[in-house]
Amino acid sequence: MAERLKPEDRAAAMQALTGWHMVENREAIAKTYRFKDFIDAFGFMARVAIVSEKIDHHPEWSNVYRTVEVTLTTHDAGGLTELDMKLATEMDRLAG
Amino acid sequence: MAERLKPEDRAAAMQALTGWHMVENREAIAKTYRFKDFIDAFGFMARVAIVSEKIDHHPEWSNVYRTVEVTLTTHDAGGLTELDMKLATEMDRLAG
Repeated sequence: MAERLKPEDRAAAMQALTGWHMVENREAIAKTYRFKDFIDAFGFMARVAIVSEKIDHHPEWSNVYRTVEVTLTTHDAGGLTELDMKLATEMDRLAG
Repeated sequence: MAERLKPEDRAAAMQALTGWHMVENREAIAKTYRFKDFIDAFGFMARVAIVSEKIDHHPEWSNVYRTVEVTLTTHDAGGLTELDMKLATEMDRLAG
């Protein structure tokens, strides 16, 4: 099972990400993606869904037309782990 | 453009739907779907996405693993229209 990141490792991992922020009152990270239209937004979600299932780590996310809001945390670990950083990195790659 | 439903038409349309409820403080309807797992939940979303784009009417929705929460309203009309009832009916069919 993935272990919670130490504060210094979490800080370093956050430095390597762009556009992600810590969620208030919760050990989680979040980002809002905006696309050209619904097709682009849902196309992104479909790509992420496949990767999520493959690595067995899934986002909390919502979609309104061309906007996708994502929150990542590792429920089993009660906070942020390498899995969240890995999925965040993959999402940025898939949104690119 | 779709016109807002009259209260009596809205009530009749709601009667024909199962598991949908009016949202508080907003002219919108909502439903929570629960599936077996993420693959089933996202498979449902993919089917709905295609129908949504086809009828040019899109849900506000969120997903956490096997749960999909949906809210429908017609922003352009400032409330509920036939489009929402049509999409709700389609979603129930696609979830079945």
